Amino acid sequence: MLKRLSGLDEFRARLADAPGPDLSARAGAADRNRELTKPPGALGRLEDLAIWYAGWRGSARPDIRAPQILVFAGNHGVCARGVSAFPPEVTEQMVANFRARGAAINQLAALAGAQMDIHALELDRPTDDFTQGPAMSDADCLAALNAGWEAVDPGADLLVAGEMGIGNTTAAAAICHALLGGEAGDWTGRGTGVDDAGLAIKTRVVAEGVARHRDGLRDGLDVLARLGGREIAATAGAIGAARQLRIPVLLDGFICCSAALCLLRTEAAALDHALAGHESAETGHAALLQALGKKPLLALGLRLGEGSGAALAIQILRGALACHSHMATFAEAGVSTG
Amino acid sequence: MLKRLSGLDEFRARLADAPGPDLSARAGAADRNRELTKPPGALGRLEDLAIWYAGWRGSARPDIRAPQILVFAGNHGVCARGVSAFPPEVTEQMVANFRARGAAINQLAALAGAQMDIHALELDRPTDDFTQGPAMSDADCLAALNAGWEAVDPGADLLVAGEMGIGNTTAAAAICHALLGGEAGDWTGRGTGVDDAGLAIKTRVVAEGVARHRDGLRDGLDVLARLGGREIAATAGAIGAARQLRIPVLLDGFICCSAALCLLRTEAAALDHALAGHESAETGHAALLQALGKKPLLALGLRLGEGSGAALAIQILRGALACHSHMATFAEAGVSTG
Repeated sequence: MLKRLSGLDEFRARLADAPGPDLSARAGAADRNRELTKPPGALGRLEDLAIWYAGWRGSARPDIRAPQILVFAGNHGVCARGVSAFPPEVTEQMVANFRARGAAINQLAALAGAQMDIHALELDRPTDDFTQGPAMSDADCLAALNAGWEAVDPGADLLVAGEMGIGNTTAAAAICHALLGGEAGDWTGRGTGVDDAGLAIKTRVVAEGVARHRDGLRDGLDVLARLGGREIAATAGAIGAARQLRIPVLLDGFICCSAALCLLRTEAAALDHALAGHESAETGHAALLQALGKKPLLALGLRLGEGSGAALAIQILRGALACHSHMATFAEAGVSTG
Repeated sequence: MLKRLSGLDEFRARLADAPGPDLSARAGAADRNRELTKPPGALGRLEDLAIWYAGWRGSARPDIRAPQILVFAGNHGVCARGVSAFPPEVTEQMVANFRARGAAINQLAALAGAQMDIHALELDRPTDDFTQGPAMSDADCLAALNAGWEAVDPGADLLVAGEMGIGNTTAAAAICHALLGGEAGDWTGRGTGVDDAGLAIKTRVVAEGVARHRDGLRDGLDVLARLGGREIAATAGAIGAARQLRIPVLLDGFICCSAALCLLRTEAAALDHALAGHESAETGHAALLQALGKKPLLALGLRLGEGSGAALAIQILRGALACHSHMATFAEAGVSTG
């Protein structure tokens, strides 16, 4: 486990001095790729994925043996404004469902052979309504960041950070609106399924929140504290911790990517170890992925969160590595090279 | 194993009287989907996939336990015209590589826990050059169809039909050009990697072949015999057999889909039990998928064949069913429904 962060500034410093990929392993993987029994480039993106993963893991011929899925849950004061189709108690009910292995993410974790850890973050103490003041104090934000920072298993070789939190698409939309501009409506979607009236309220709440905090936002971490939530901060902490440990990350949907955006807008290279697992159907996710510079592996219209889309994408990355690390070379197989 | 077909007309008859999905199981699956602990529709296409699969398997809550991957290999007389970047002996070398478990498809089959069967179809007797006459006699086409028809394991619960055959993108392009029109260049791509000069030759060969056989093509099976190849006919036979057995099919890339097109243009409902596993980077595949009315599950730039893209997609379908068949319902989990 990484040593607990002493403050948000230490987190900023760790983002700034984070390690890069192993260039020698990456070059070795690219060499190996050219020798495998297939026409050059015929495995398309799978080839790039394998070489990318090899660099981060420091091995020219790696496998994914120990993926970890973290699910962070938090509650949101802004729910009092009527921004969600589900009541806030569903956050805790779904945590119980995760623990009883009844949710979608449990099934996808089992399919991927992934370790799954659930972290419920002070569910009885929702963040404050961000239209009235900061969602979190710096101390609360740090505590949530540390929950994610310490949750990453140093023995993992791939990380998915999922989330659950009634109201959190509102927080994520506010983060996007604050950091990427546009109109509040560009980033505000139906989440778990609000109706038209609910969507209008939600959009207004996002606009109000961003207007309230527009001054005094220096970087992504400021936005995270003022407009985010505990599960979003924990996700940011986990992505940052994975980088320290050179564990590649598959980003999930809109909420997860809003946490990633806070990192990117704090340190430009902070997401080099991360790929977009999928493109969600939630409003704004496609544009958010563009802002992150990430092309999703899957686009199947999911909009569930929990880490579900990224968990599904584990199998794509694993397929890439199965081919890369276990195919025969032309020489081994005695196949003519054309 | 299904009883051997006595002629192409018997195959036509079996396509025409093929069974449909179990509507009661499909309705049961749709009911179950509405009860699962997630917002309605939040699993996107995974929900449709699970319900579709449930209908074909006749169970409202099925799993994929026994996927089968078939790889058919054939040689092509048209290779003498210089249409491929690799020499024809590579077909046999790659069959040896499949048997030694060194190819991409072997790794992806292992990842999917799939049974894999390799059928080398008279590699020492290539089809005839289709610019000079029919690629296959009706008897040869029937023999290859039967090889596929008999290769499907009645105990399988999902089928991928892959292929290997130096020259077979030329045959597939000719099939598409004959059945879908346009210009020869619309359907002719670089296959394993021909250069510009090779591509020009290949395009001319496709145009010549289709012009040679334009008269006397009644349906897709005629096109299959005149312009196809043994591995393409075997793929068509396997897809047809799977339908008789209500085994869902994941279509692979350009070659596999050219076989599927021959079926569709013989019997309009012949592909109702099939999904597109992926969109290949090979020229023409996106348009071919459109003609088949299939939206791919993956689009990762693969253009390898062997069944590789479809094999990767097995995990997506399996993810859909893991969620569908094993998630808790709202009632089971005690989660509020909003």
